[in-house]
Amino acid sequence: MHDADAAIALLKGASAAAADVFKTILTRGPISRIDVARLLGLSQAAVTKAVGPLIEVGLVSDQLELPRDGQPGRPANPVMVVADALVSIGVKVNADEIVGVATDLTTRILAVDRRPLKVTDRDVVVDAIEATTARLGALLGARADRLCAVGVSVSGDVDTERGIVRESAIMGWTDVPLGQILSGRLGRDVLVENDVRALTIGEHWFGVGVGTDLFAIVTIGRGIGSGLHINGDVVEGAYGVAGEIGHLPLTSPDRICPCGRRGCVEAVAATPAIVAEVSRGHGRNLTIGEVVDLAHHGDPIAVSTFEQAATVIGTAIAVLANLTGPELVIIGGEAVSNFDLFETHLRASFAEHAFGAAGRCQIVTRPHTFEDWARGASASAIRRLAENR
Amino acid sequence: MHDADAAIALLKGASAAAADVFKTILTRGPISRIDVARLLGLSQAAVTKAVGPLIEVGLVSDQLELPRDGQPGRPANPVMVVADALVSIGVKVNADEIVGVATDLTTRILAVDRRPLKVTDRDVVVDAIEATTARLGALLGARADRLCAVGVSVSGDVDTERGIVRESAIMGWTDVPLGQILSGRLGRDVLVENDVRALTIGEHWFGVGVGTDLFAIVTIGRGIGSGLHINGDVVEGAYGVAGEIGHLPLTSPDRICPCGRRGCVEAVAATPAIVAEVSRGHGRNLTIGEVVDLAHHGDPIAVSTFEQAATVIGTAIAVLANLTGPELVIIGGEAVSNFDLFETHLRASFAEHAFGAAGRCQIVTRPHTFEDWARGASASAIRRLAENR
Repeated sequence: MHDADAAIALLKGASAAAADVFKTILTRGPISRIDVARLLGLSQAAVTKAVGPLIEVGLVSDQLELPRDGQPGRPANPVMVVADALVSIGVKVNADEIVGVATDLTTRILAVDRRPLKVTDRDVVVDAIEATTARLGALLGARADRLCAVGVSVSGDVDTERGIVRESAIMGWTDVPLGQILSGRLGRDVLVENDVRALTIGEHWFGVGVGTDLFAIVTIGRGIGSGLHINGDVVEGAYGVAGEIGHLPLTSPDRICPCGRRGCVEAVAATPAIVAEVSRGHGRNLTIGEVVDLAHHGDPIAVSTFEQAATVIGTAIAVLANLTGPELVIIGGEAVSNFDLFETHLRASFAEHAFGAAGRCQIVTRPHTFEDWARGASASAIRRLAENR
Repeated sequence: MHDADAAIALLKGASAAAADVFKTILTRGPISRIDVARLLGLSQAAVTKAVGPLIEVGLVSDQLELPRDGQPGRPANPVMVVADALVSIGVKVNADEIVGVATDLTTRILAVDRRPLKVTDRDVVVDAIEATTARLGALLGARADRLCAVGVSVSGDVDTERGIVRESAIMGWTDVPLGQILSGRLGRDVLVENDVRALTIGEHWFGVGVGTDLFAIVTIGRGIGSGLHINGDVVEGAYGVAGEIGHLPLTSPDRICPCGRRGCVEAVAATPAIVAEVSRGHGRNLTIGEVVDLAHHGDPIAVSTFEQAATVIGTAIAVLANLTGPELVIIGGEAVSNFDLFETHLRASFAEHAFGAAGRCQIVTRPHTFEDWARGASASAIRRLAENR
């Protein structure tokens, strides 16, 4: 039987090399010790030495029942993570809902709790997060003893190092020390991360970004954000800000963004901007559902508003590609469910402004659910534990 | 006595860990073996094992004559690179001049050769690069035997992996296999790198970027480019394109860029665009010298043209900061010598569009000479050897 406390203590006390070994087994396993050594530039002896204690505490196993597919070249004595040795909780904070998941070490979802928010008052939100983690603990049953990490993701400018939500327009928060408050409530460390960065971490470790070093996630919908993965890690920004693709000044200065700046992408392409524009054109207040319906029925105002939004988003992705040169851009976010309204103009403006070989970047969509976002928060918390930072 | 061939062979055959040890000593030395181990997450035994052969071939020394400054905390038994154990050549290709330098391992310049180019025909340029390397060899004298690497940097879209200049507007080149041609001529591997990336590598290893992981160089002048350093390395782009800040669509679509796209930063803010705009305003062809003089004497057309250029550059730097969040942006390039004409509007538009804490990014200037650019090419070649890739 494994001992969760011993496993957590081992990870928290790991040397950088041992942490690298665990991370490699976690994200690349099943994998042979030889391949781990090769990937990390370590000696096989060093890898074997690091793997021993991981097996001892039940975090890693080399007794695998692999499907026999008769392929030659199967790694000799592969090791892999014992996924349910530990569990982690991830919470995505939305303006109108808390979405929490409990996951295993590979971010497979074990339990879900969603609860609506009526207001974004920080005390209300903290209470809701506490209730969600308690509920997830109850759903986990005996496995709750194996809880190793809690991660919470919020839209906006988040100082992950200090656990402070410096600014979140969607929540109406400024300088909320969410990490400290939640750590006090829950009696354990809580990682607070920007929501798109958390999603990017989740995709890199366990999603479509596995095996791709240089990729970006762009989310469209109520907000427009991005997460960049470059040179082996997510881009955090020296001061905690990065990936703010929604606030690139790519449209007319007449368009004022809710952030107060002029010409931001969000001022034209975020869902509220689209709804406002079409409502103005029709002289009445519409919902996003009505606006989407109008566009699907060929209403010229709605169609041209989506086209304009798509053009700006495509230009923004070209800007991102010209600066950082990703292999892959994954578009997610609520608005992906209506990607047909964006696709043609988005791809055309990307092609128009992408510079040279940067235009080879693939643009794909992925309909992330809010549970996926919460999984990203859980992945971020697991990553911090695994990287021992 | 050291043996250059043995040293080069050792570096080329180094394991990833040994290469990391050498790189750390090269860029951080003098440094104790304990600190090398700590930085790399290796055991002290592993570091000692890697350092031994480096000392043996004369690449590293632990017999240092350090100035006695009486400071406590001096590292015990520090090691450092023997800078002149090997020499490297770096060549910066301009449209009108080849600038070559021979440097030691720390990119200290040992010899310089500059020769004008009348045309940018690739055969003429290759001949000139060959003549420059021969001349630098002659200037090095006996030290030429220690030549370990040659790097050449060119503006444009460069595929470093394959040594191909895919597109260089300034040179008028498309798909020139410069690496292969030069390797044939010189009888040795030649690294070909984008010029701004080479400068960024040089700054990170040996310049103002040392100790800063997240920084960018932005060059202004005939072209406008940037080099980004994120998560421990320069950003190369999945397809070889990155840092193309001159081709972000941040100005009016009426402005056509020499690259053929609309609204690029270079279409307003590159030196030729500034000269053309002021010339048009005055109804005669002016030189950049005359345009700068006019602006310094308060000519309204010249002043407003520089202000417009500065506004676009500042906006572009804000875009870069919002996406990647650098700690520091270093502005270089020929136009830095007249930075007074840019500074106020550049900083104002940066402040206007920088998002949240991204605005804390420091913007400094550094007047790189063309020898500095050539040093960057040498640094890139040394890096490739040291990283054994």
